[in-house]
Amino acid sequence: MNIGILGGTGPEGKGLALRFAAAGIQVVLGSRVAVRAEEKAAEYNSILGKQVIRGTANSEMLHLCEMVFLAVPFRQAIEAIEAIRGDLSSGTVLVDVTVPAVFSPGRVEYLAQEGDSGAETLARHIPAGIELVGAFKTIPAHVLAELKVKLDCDVFVCGDSRQAKELVMQAVRTIPTLRPLDAGPLRNARTLERMTILEIQLNLRYKSKGARFRVVGI
Amino acid sequence: MNIGILGGTGPEGKGLALRFAAAGIQVVLGSRVAVRAEEKAAEYNSILGKQVIRGTANSEMLHLCEMVFLAVPFRQAIEAIEAIRGDLSSGTVLVDVTVPAVFSPGRVEYLAQEGDSGAETLARHIPAGIELVGAFKTIPAHVLAELKVKLDCDVFVCGDSRQAKELVMQAVRTIPTLRPLDAGPLRNARTLERMTILEIQLNLRYKSKGARFRVVGI
Repeated sequence: MNIGILGGTGPEGKGLALRFAAAGIQVVLGSRVAVRAEEKAAEYNSILGKQVIRGTANSEMLHLCEMVFLAVPFRQAIEAIEAIRGDLSSGTVLVDVTVPAVFSPGRVEYLAQEGDSGAETLARHIPAGIELVGAFKTIPAHVLAELKVKLDCDVFVCGDSRQAKELVMQAVRTIPTLRPLDAGPLRNARTLERMTILEIQLNLRYKSKGARFRVVGI
Repeated sequence: MNIGILGGTGPEGKGLALRFAAAGIQVVLGSRVAVRAEEKAAEYNSILGKQVIRGTANSEMLHLCEMVFLAVPFRQAIEAIEAIRGDLSSGTVLVDVTVPAVFSPGRVEYLAQEGDSGAETLARHIPAGIELVGAFKTIPAHVLAELKVKLDCDVFVCGDSRQAKELVMQAVRTIPTLRPLDAGPLRNARTLERMTILEIQLNLRYKSKGARFRVVGI
């Protein structure tokens, strides 16, 4: 399986690319400008010490990959989906890792979507035949990007297609010490996105940086 | 400090009573009918192997305790608060451990309170001078009640009074392996209550019973 990363030049995309590539998965970074993705691929390959990540234009990345992570900030996600609309093939699994947040100095709050989650909002912009799965929402980007940090936490995977969720969970299982948990339907992103905000608030309060959740007892 | 438990004859109350009493705290069970609380106190004392828990009528319990846990199901909580209204003394810290849930066979959903949390709904029924703190919402009652089970998880404490939260966190710290985390203002119960629903959903899916959260990285 090839994993594509749309927004692979940002911090969340970096972590996903490094962790999946280190686990032996073929990773393709996509960018609107191919050369930017190529440059980032070269940078990440030098961190890994091997040539395993490719960078290319979004359209080519989308043709190469069965699973594509939307690793852009939430406020850019709808625009990003609209931009790639024509290049999405039926059966592609899109993975939403975004969280709608409002930051102000020393504070972060959840940007509520009229009772909806960010994931549900994005789902309304996805063409038919494409499955949207929410995952990695509660994993801090910089923790993901620091390969020396043991993740020792859970990835909550939510979505309305059991098959698409299972594919994402299989991909998560390739990353050592990271456990995928089936967190139910896409609307459960309402819980997961709020959990991410709580993590950031805990980081601010406890002067930590990498708060993340682990479920004990299952 | 004396800890009172309103609804101390139910499963959540049992766990709180046993854990706090085992940690050396004076625990007083309250019930509308004094003799029921006395009977339960005797039962819990026999589990502990020492006479450390008292049972009495709610009015007396409220006069004896600075911190009182509302350990009734959410749907009975408003009625319970109204019933004890006249016996609440200014400065009492009420701790809400409830979660608004809708159960059907094999399913559980969050009972949304018009955008509010259950805790915020209860707060509107609390007389002035009484602080409401949310805590223990994500700790499964039966895990709490089985003293041989190591809790190894976090208690998220939310509330709008820093002093009241700190008192509750001090009480939590007496219980071995349980870590209190300041989870922000009372409105963050919107997150914590949804996390509890997610736990129960995970239990149903993974055929487990005691799913609970631990924060890694702080």
